[in-house]
Amino acid sequence: MSVTTSLQITQVTPFINLVKTQRPLVHCITNDVVQNFTANVLLAIGASPAMIIAEQEVAEFVKIANSLLINIGTINHNTAKSMLLAASQAQQSQTPWVLDPVAVGSALAYRTEIAYQLLSFKPTVIRGNASEILALSGQFASSKGPDSQDSTKSALQYAKQLAQDYQTIIAMTGDIDYITDGHTTYAIAGGDIALTKITGTGCSLSAMVAAFIVNSTDPLLATAAACFMMKKAGEKANKQLGLGSFAVSLLDQLSLFYSSY
Amino acid sequence: MSVTTSLQITQVTPFINLVKTQRPLVHCITNDVVQNFTANVLLAIGASPAMIIAEQEVAEFVKIANSLLINIGTINHNTAKSMLLAASQAQQSQTPWVLDPVAVGSALAYRTEIAYQLLSFKPTVIRGNASEILALSGQFASSKGPDSQDSTKSALQYAKQLAQDYQTIIAMTGDIDYITDGHTTYAIAGGDIALTKITGTGCSLSAMVAAFIVNSTDPLLATAAACFMMKKAGEKANKQLGLGSFAVSLLDQLSLFYSSY
Amino acid sequence: MSVTTSLQITQVTPFINLVKTQRPLVHCITNDVVQNFTANVLLAIGASPAMIIAEQEVAEFVKIANSLLINIGTINHNTAKSMLLAASQAQQSQTPWVLDPVAVGSALAYRTEIAYQLLSFKPTVIRGNASEILALSGQFASSKGPDSQDSTKSALQYAKQLAQDYQTIIAMTGDIDYITDGHTTYAIAGGDIALTKITGTGCSLSAMVAAFIVNSTDPLLATAAACFMMKKAGEKANKQLGLGSFAVSLLDQLSLFYSSY
Repeated sequence: MSVTTSLQITQVTPFINLVKTQRPLVHCITNDVVQNFTANVLLAIGASPAMIIAEQEVAEFVKIANSLLINIGTINHNTAKSMLLAASQAQQSQTPWVLDPVAVGSALAYRTEIAYQLLSFKPTVIRGNASEILALSGQFASSKGPDSQDSTKSALQYAKQLAQDYQTIIAMTGDIDYITDGHTTYAIAGGDIALTKITGTGCSLSAMVAAFIVNSTDPLLATAAACFMMKKAGEKANKQLGLGSFAVSLLDQLSLFYSSY
Repeated sequence: MSVTTSLQITQVTPFINLVKTQRPLVHCITNDVVQNFTANVLLAIGASPAMIIAEQEVAEFVKIANSLLINIGTINHNTAKSMLLAASQAQQSQTPWVLDPVAVGSALAYRTEIAYQLLSFKPTVIRGNASEILALSGQFASSKGPDSQDSTKSALQYAKQLAQDYQTIIAMTGDIDYITDGHTTYAIAGGDIALTKITGTGCSLSAMVAAFIVNSTDPLLATAAACFMMKKAGEKANKQLGLGSFAVSLLDQLSLFYSSY
Repeated sequence: MSVTTSLQITQVTPFINLVKTQRPLVHCITNDVVQNFTANVLLAIGASPAMIIAEQEVAEFVKIANSLLINIGTINHNTAKSMLLAASQAQQSQTPWVLDPVAVGSALAYRTEIAYQLLSFKPTVIRGNASEILALSGQFASSKGPDSQDSTKSALQYAKQLAQDYQTIIAMTGDIDYITDGHTTYAIAGGDIALTKITGTGCSLSAMVAAFIVNSTDPLLATAAACFMMKKAGEKANKQLGLGSFAVSLLDQLSLFYSSY
């Protein structure tokens, strides 16, 4: 029923250019660990980040933002309220939005319940690792905390089913990224192990996806393009000097993509 | 009625040295995106940052701090309460303080109302972009979110009026920075477009201003000196490798200013 | 009654390797300024950080984490509640945990009271600067805010007493680090003044200690090993280009330690 294809750079370029041209305003409600990195990643690719989190402000701001990111990494009862208000507004205004269900699963019942509530507001894309996608699918996931213990390949069938059940796009990232709507699937190999050894690469990829799907006629391919760009930047970034330099170089590479395309 | 002058490096040096000598304790209540960068900028110029945010602690701490920064970027009802308590105490203790009214304006009513309440506690300096200064002046501002869409030149008359109305100093930064008390105005050209492509340069400049105005006999010139230092560091910082390296190099340049003056 | 000894690299290597082999899951409830840096430091040494802060989640997560860090730097009433729940659970599950009592002392009564409540849950290690250790000992400390004004040498007797009173390990860091259980004391000289001029080196050292004490038969030596590693990385890191580059290079050095041992 479903076809898996690889991506070519030529398919990706128009989406990178679209972000550059539109300079989308991306409303981020994200976790405390990656706020700065996420903002810098969005700026590097030419988007305009705005971290608005007050429950008094989020719905208002979703209306003027071009897209929304919700990342539950450091959720608490205050931010949970804001996330639900924002997601509800996004559904109502048809603002495209991305859910990053960090560390969802049986070990953390509170966020898992909130994640299911968020799902009811129909995210355009869910971006997570294999453990998170398995957990959302009701499968056993071996992960504890934000780092995945499961392979994306073995979880692919569940990702496809989840995409169909919620009529959404799943971007399940890892050794191989799979981006699927349950019917068409893009597979992206490559990247670098160092991407898993600095914090925030997955979280900021979710923000990139939010920027890429703005006014896109093909949100599935736009999502895949963002994943492709992160993997390529990870390959190009300097890993010789250590992980501190790698994080800096990753931002460099993302910003140079922007300049050269 | 009003005179605009340019700044020379020789006017700036004494203020850089004063920060270095005094090592002012700068109490920061700032947004979640720039906490780390702001702390590192303050340390780089020789100041001592302290991010104290609990409503049980802020007033107490304002009393021992040398100055206060309030930045409303990721305001919520908890931090709003702390900001109001801190600003009120600052007025009472005559602690110099800086207001950074991030993204204030009609699109975000909640923070705009809080910003006006904060204004009633008479900030020593307001540091913002043109859109924010226009919004505080009750003018139409074209910006949505933290990035300005308006030019500082066209907003200058409103900045001067605002400074007079609130008997404060306005540091309106952008292509050209204008620092005005409504009577005397300093204009600072230069800088680099890259300063707008990483997060936190405006926010951390507001923190620098808080450090510079401590025990200053000329807070207007001290504010201008901080703006000058940020523009110069932006010019000197390496932009060849990409935006990640630029952010690192900007901190380097700020810390080398410190060492060489 | 008590012996002070210096550390050799050969004593340290097994502890660095243990972190690498075990990949401990370190639950961090830490301050807003250092979240990103702390996560990257833990990843650099081979540990797995998880910043879980909701009061609905912390106790649950302490049960599956290998160790816990509590840092009160930007405490407020919400995070205070989570810290107390987490520390209580850690005592109950015998999960090793580290307390970092940032800026504790008479100037900040609220956090000082919470710190004493946290102490009642018997932290495995307390990591602080001299001013913080003096303050916890009920002595006068000259510091205001997070930066120490006192020398570790003059505070050593109080550190030893505090360790005995609470049957804990004190890692008091500064010019010379002292790691003591009140009977045996390790002294570590070296390091670099630049470590005090970027934010988060103390806070992330506390997180490293949390990683090092997991399943350790000698938590005192494990704590000293973490302190040793930070000092050495500080010595090796590049200080020529400025403080921005130093922070990046420090992460590099920590990650290279990991690769080469």
